[in-house]
Amino acid sequence: MRNAVPQEIEITKINESKISQVDFENLAFGKVFTDHMFICDYVNGEWQTPKIVPYGPLTLDPSARVFHYGQAVFEGMKAYKDDQGDTFLFRPDENFKRINKSAERLAMPEFPEEYFFDGLNTLLKLDDQWIKSGFGNSLYIRPFVIATQPSVSASEADEYRFMIICSPAQSYYSGDVSVLVAEKFSRSASGGFGYAKAAGNYAGQFYPTKLAKEQGYQQIIWTDSNTHEYVEEAGTMNVFFRINDTLLTAPVSDRILDGITRKSLIALAEKQGYNVEVRPIKVSEVVDAFNNGSLKEIFGAGTAAVVSPVKAFGYKGEHYELEKQENSYASYFKKSLMDIQYNKAEDSFGWRTKV
Amino acid sequence: MRNAVPQEIEITKINESKISQVDFENLAFGKVFTDHMFICDYVNGEWQTPKIVPYGPLTLDPSARVFHYGQAVFEGMKAYKDDQGDTFLFRPDENFKRINKSAERLAMPEFPEEYFFDGLNTLLKLDDQWIKSGFGNSLYIRPFVIATQPSVSASEADEYRFMIICSPAQSYYSGDVSVLVAEKFSRSASGGFGYAKAAGNYAGQFYPTKLAKEQGYQQIIWTDSNTHEYVEEAGTMNVFFRINDTLLTAPVSDRILDGITRKSLIALAEKQGYNVEVRPIKVSEVVDAFNNGSLKEIFGAGTAAVVSPVKAFGYKGEHYELEKQENSYASYFKKSLMDIQYNKAEDSFGWRTKV
Repeated sequence: MRNAVPQEIEITKINESKISQVDFENLAFGKVFTDHMFICDYVNGEWQTPKIVPYGPLTLDPSARVFHYGQAVFEGMKAYKDDQGDTFLFRPDENFKRINKSAERLAMPEFPEEYFFDGLNTLLKLDDQWIKSGFGNSLYIRPFVIATQPSVSASEADEYRFMIICSPAQSYYSGDVSVLVAEKFSRSASGGFGYAKAAGNYAGQFYPTKLAKEQGYQQIIWTDSNTHEYVEEAGTMNVFFRINDTLLTAPVSDRILDGITRKSLIALAEKQGYNVEVRPIKVSEVVDAFNNGSLKEIFGAGTAAVVSPVKAFGYKGEHYELEKQENSYASYFKKSLMDIQYNKAEDSFGWRTKV
Repeated sequence: MRNAVPQEIEITKINESKISQVDFENLAFGKVFTDHMFICDYVNGEWQTPKIVPYGPLTLDPSARVFHYGQAVFEGMKAYKDDQGDTFLFRPDENFKRINKSAERLAMPEFPEEYFFDGLNTLLKLDDQWIKSGFGNSLYIRPFVIATQPSVSASEADEYRFMIICSPAQSYYSGDVSVLVAEKFSRSASGGFGYAKAAGNYAGQFYPTKLAKEQGYQQIIWTDSNTHEYVEEAGTMNVFFRINDTLLTAPVSDRILDGITRKSLIALAEKQGYNVEVRPIKVSEVVDAFNNGSLKEIFGAGTAAVVSPVKAFGYKGEHYELEKQENSYASYFKKSLMDIQYNKAEDSFGWRTKV
């Protein structure tokens, strides 16, 4: 990697914070952004001097390749503040590794580790007042890279922009969700880039999700595109099933995102002595478990929602309502994970990183 | 569709054309753009007053959804000028229908037909001097739609921008190409959106193509993601095979773009009395045909390259060099199609549209 020695970040501060205009009690997800943003451009084969500037619009040529060929990858992270006013990230090394894994699959240049962490830490310190303490409050962090090169030639770009923008967040989902198991539409192909956090993995989900919403479901559980017989992921979350007291989730593959919340839940469950099976899961197995009463829970796991309980699922025209569980795994995992994230519990895994 | 009655286009002309700075003899594909561009914004559930303005940069919020979730579709068209100075489009109704088909799959709003054609015709008349006569010269036209709404919430946007930008073009490919048949990577999933001209279908191809280039191939012929046994398309072109005197191409599906050049070639071939088979084609059948001497030609078909002859292909570590054909189908089709496009031949299909 070139530019191994990080350059000093050029910082331009805002004149006046806009924070007083923000109602922190009523935040829609991802609509309000902090005072500053991090920018680093890739030109002539090198990442240029990183900058922190006031949050504001980008100016791009209409032929910039991101608009035409979807060369764009991103990450989702959160910063959490404890009651003492200290700020923490959760396994940020995993986000850093993954954005470069995503970038590689989209023929985009690797971003240097030092730039990533220097940029992130400097930005978080500058916008510290936007990170509110209180369980459930967080700062959602969106690192992303876009192809900026002007030219509609269908090949990888030579010019990119890496950015970090931050948005104060409350909880992402309100209430339990109903999900529809995909029978026709697919999220990702074998040999494709479903494992990458790439822009192109999302746009194709909105239309099937819109159709699912018309049937009363909020999300889709994607199945394998070859047979639609195996459950994969929920598009913005990985999916877990509890059958009796066994926790099941699909193995990651080139179609499934290697979710950080997913792997953290697996680690937590194993440490707690739960029976965890990471293996292909047939939809029919889930339906059978529902029918014989052994399907206790389904829940999604992801950075935005942490753990999102599923109250019902639809499949082949049937609707399956799950019974509400006392002492659910979902609530146990959500609390265990958040206790670590918010510095309320011992972090035996070393996942927490102080900013 | 709302706004069925087209609004007058607001036109802001350039002060001085930049055309004198352009070397029309040495045009790289898609790098130089004409003086004006067409813009129409979708806000509050309606397409707003369309505008033609000087070509220039866009200003977008860093959270605009196109950067994060890939909601972006496009078309590729060309305008051709004959020796009398008249300008023609080729089957533009097909492009119009397809951009809306692509948009629907990505949960984007339909663009009104009147706006599309009024915008396109007005823009082409305004930038007429950029369309050079001469066989092979053209104006490449890129209509596209991007999600502009600022918010990193993972759902379809409420705000979009439709644009048309134009770039003077010579021929897209120089010389015959060598292609690698995909064995591991895939372009598209069954149940996905491979049939759409969507940004997300392109970014994933660049990395496998980069690996193919390292082996001396310029393009990839994609195979079905389930088995990798059937040929599909070349990513920016559909693919034809000539076995003896039969022309073969794969049927379109939800994974394969319904190419306008593709369907025009099929119509031309059938009219000419050629034997045409549109059916699933196994890679093994192509290899067998090569081995027994019946594989005469392979060529790609698409708007940018028109017809692009393949001189060799690679598959499972073997390299297959095709013999150069006298009176090739590729050159026959290329000339026949271009004669229609450039108003040099009778257009019995009614494909040509005068601007």
